[in-house]
Amino acid sequence: MELERVELKNAYRLLGHGPTVLVSTTDGKAPNACAVAWCAPAGKNPPRFVLRIGERHKTYQNLMAAGECVLNVPTRDALDEVMICGRKSGHDGDKLAAAGIETEAAKEVDAPRLSCCVAWLECKLVGKLELQGSGLVLLEAVLVECRPGVMRDDGHMDVERFPTLHHLGGGVFSVPGSVVVHE
Amino acid sequence: MELERVELKNAYRLLGHGPTVLVSTTDGKAPNACAVAWCAPAGKNPPRFVLRIGERHKTYQNLMAAGECVLNVPTRDALDEVMICGRKSGHDGDKLAAAGIETEAAKEVDAPRLSCCVAWLECKLVGKLELQGSGLVLLEAVLVECRPGVMRDDGHMDVERFPTLHHLGGGVFSVPGSVVVHE
Repeated sequence: MELERVELKNAYRLLGHGPTVLVSTTDGKAPNACAVAWCAPAGKNPPRFVLRIGERHKTYQNLMAAGECVLNVPTRDALDEVMICGRKSGHDGDKLAAAGIETEAAKEVDAPRLSCCVAWLECKLVGKLELQGSGLVLLEAVLVECRPGVMRDDGHMDVERFPTLHHLGGGVFSVPGSVVVHE
Repeated sequence: MELERVELKNAYRLLGHGPTVLVSTTDGKAPNACAVAWCAPAGKNPPRFVLRIGERHKTYQNLMAAGECVLNVPTRDALDEVMICGRKSGHDGDKLAAAGIETEAAKEVDAPRLSCCVAWLECKLVGKLELQGSGLVLLEAVLVECRPGVMRDDGHMDVERFPTLHHLGGGVFSVPGSVVVHE
């Protein structure tokens, strides 16, 4: 499939509506991914994102060691993959291979992309925010691609065609229904 | 209307699915509010939230001076109010009064609540995250209330009855349609 490049200055438009992402990393031996609902844009230019990732997670350790990751944007079709990435620990072996979750090479980072997703934000770690034990990481996107049609011609994500997952708790997510436009 | 108290350890469930919030503050003379789409939970217990708010905004200045604010959660019915709060500057006078946006007293902070919203997270400023000019603020909720029914008996937000606004860009928002549950 021919992917579309998303301009870095528009990267925030993939995450500003608050979807859960899958954060993929590698320790140089095996790929890994975890589900992160607590994620928000933190700047347009440079395109930055702030995430809360548990410090004991394999993802956090890989991110600190390699300094990079991919923010993969799943839709409703990838609900099973999101739950596997969210519930299984990367410390217990290669959960992606065990579950048959396909990966492919990214272009600017060694962390893999997850094929089940519809947009990929390849990111470098900018820093770790230690204040008050907040455990937040700050990322900067260096290359962003999406499936054809994910970004509409008007520059907004087409969430009606590509319904993202928004975490309500446990295994429960809302998906976008309609789009409202203020005149 | 009799409001319901939300346990602080469940406060993240009002924002984990990524809605836009209205951040209300006061400078001691007039109330103010701005729309913030870049907001995410940053901890369950204590219940923390990370937001990006432009440093030139009146909201940011009020927050730094008073050390507190309310995160008001609007639904589709409050789209007009969200756009007014998002587009008008608090430096140009009392935009809430000018637009007829009603406020009411909060219980633990001096910042007001916006009556048009369905949940209110009264917050104290925990800190400012300066790293790399990120301009992020970290808040901690001290009291949370919602309209009856906003939190379902299973502890999840009822976004079908109270459809939150999720910012896609400009005046365009998605609202939750269906809810998917992973078995």
